[in-house]
Amino acid sequence: MSTLGAELTVVVQGGVEIRLPFSPNLTQRDGYLHAGAITAVLDLASGCAALTVAAGDKKILTVEFKVNFLAPDAGEVFAASAQVKKAGRTLTVCTADAFAVSDGREKVVATMLSTIMAVPITPAKKQTSVHSLALRRCVPT
Amino acid sequence: MSTLGAELTVVVQGGVEIRLPFSPNLTQRDGYLHAGAITAVLDLASGCAALTVAAGDKKILTVEFKVNFLAPDAGEVFAASAQVKKAGRTLTVCTADAFAVSDGREKVVATMLSTIMAVPITPAKKQTSVHSLALRRCVPT
Amino acid sequence: MSTLGAELTVVVQGGVEIRLPFSPNLTQRDGYLHAGAITAVLDLASGCAALTVAAGDKKILTVEFKVNFLAPDAGEVFAASAQVKKAGRTLTVCTADAFAVSDGREKVVATMLSTIMAVPITPAKKQTSVHSLALRRCVPT
Amino acid sequence: MSTLGAELTVVVQGGVEIRLPFSPNLTQRDGYLHAGAITAVLDLASGCAALTVAAGDKKILTVEFKVNFLAPDAGEVFAASAQVKKAGRTLTVCTADAFAVSDGREKVVATMLSTIMAVPITPAKKQTSVHSLALRRCVPT
Repeated sequence: MSTLGAELTVVVQGGVEIRLPFSPNLTQRDGYLHAGAITAVLDLASGCAALTVAAGDKKILTVEFKVNFLAPDAGEVFAASAQVKKAGRTLTVCTADAFAVSDGREKVVATMLSTIMAVPITPAKKQTSVHSLALRRCVPT
Repeated sequence: MSTLGAELTVVVQGGVEIRLPFSPNLTQRDGYLHAGAITAVLDLASGCAALTVAAGDKKILTVEFKVNFLAPDAGEVFAASAQVKKAGRTLTVCTADAFAVSDGREKVVATMLSTIMAVPITPAKKQTSVHSLALRRCVPT
Repeated sequence: MSTLGAELTVVVQGGVEIRLPFSPNLTQRDGYLHAGAITAVLDLASGCAALTVAAGDKKILTVEFKVNFLAPDAGEVFAASAQVKKAGRTLTVCTADAFAVSDGREKVVATMLSTIMAVPITPAKKQTSVHSLALRRCVPT
Repeated sequence: MSTLGAELTVVVQGGVEIRLPFSPNLTQRDGYLHAGAITAVLDLASGCAALTVAAGDKKILTVEFKVNFLAPDAGEVFAASAQVKKAGRTLTVCTADAFAVSDGREKVVATMLSTIMAVPITPAKKQTSVHSLALRRCVPT
């Protein structure tokens, strides 16, 4: 994520926001965000939101997600906002929206509904995994 | 719908709410709502929401939907609330939540993300179809 | 299911087929199958398929599903065929197709991709639950 | 795609297969394929499959998709196979599977169910767009 310049701009219990600048790595020839990039950032935001409600000895895996692409759009900043819809012991359901931000105006470009699973961190990895997971998944290092 | 006692309790541009009493037709042996009943009412509410933003000479068809079942619950009243997320010329994307209402307290039992298509009403059916569609789909006659 | 005349026509490890005659309970005014009925039978077939690979002390719950409606069609018999795509310890993923059968010709009317969870049968219900679940969910009694 | 070394290994009416070697661009630290990479290649394969049944004056857009992640796996080659489930005038529904190939053995790692829309190529772009779309979307240039 570091190479993309992503930033975790909001982290609350049950919700996160991620922002990153538009770059040629994220866009197609026409300047619009690539569906793969939109999906990856929506998945990342959803996973981070699920992590905020997971037990400390759990890591999270994406079981499945559905994405609707609503409108192509370009801008200066690309943001994804995810919220926990239901936190269960094993499964967490999240909703997330992706936005293109241009001149301070936000336009929704896609929406995701996902199912995320909390699984125990295996003992051998226990000491560092939560941290490394957080680093790997939620913090642009 | 009439036999179930459904009622269209809110209709605004881009959103509707449907409420109906719990009944043995909707529930399993344990008193919880049946997944099929939840899905049918979420689909109905989403279709009605899409209809509020469709052109007058169009009818709507469900292209696809995804439903996450969040929690089993029982109650006295079952409600579904749907909102248009994006209204396009051909395709409309809706989100909808289903609730079990008990002692005035609402609990979300399921959530839907759907894609709905607006198609021209064929000429021969034009005079009565919008009305009959509305009656058939959105009003418990 | 009994009132609809449903029949479990194929049961193998990881797959089932359900058939039922078209009836006014399943169809709209135009004779086409109702989306709610299609979804309910696809969900039922998927749950039964998941049950064929579940441990004996587990019952199954639908976590989520997505349905694409492919074509409206009428016929004499309505069938749903479900297959286990991946059987996990906790989660099972199934695909299922719904068909309208007319003059021996099958036409696909919808397809489902679902996530199903195996959960322990609670001790108090252990003696009868597998059986009653099977009866309730998979056998038209 | 060129930098990833992707190759369109099968193209038939209604189906395609894409293969590409595992590389650090596609994998996480553990050597498993990244969900974002899996999704992007499934979407690409589905779009190419839809293109094989689209009219020559149409380009395609992904409306929505659902992906289930079935198993993490590593290998030498990563493949995605997509089939058209239903080709309509406006909307095409595709299924696609992603595989990790190791020692000649294929293992399914994810499955997608998607809705793709055919839209007219705008006149100004008509002469080159089908070709450039094909190049951009389906051929690793």
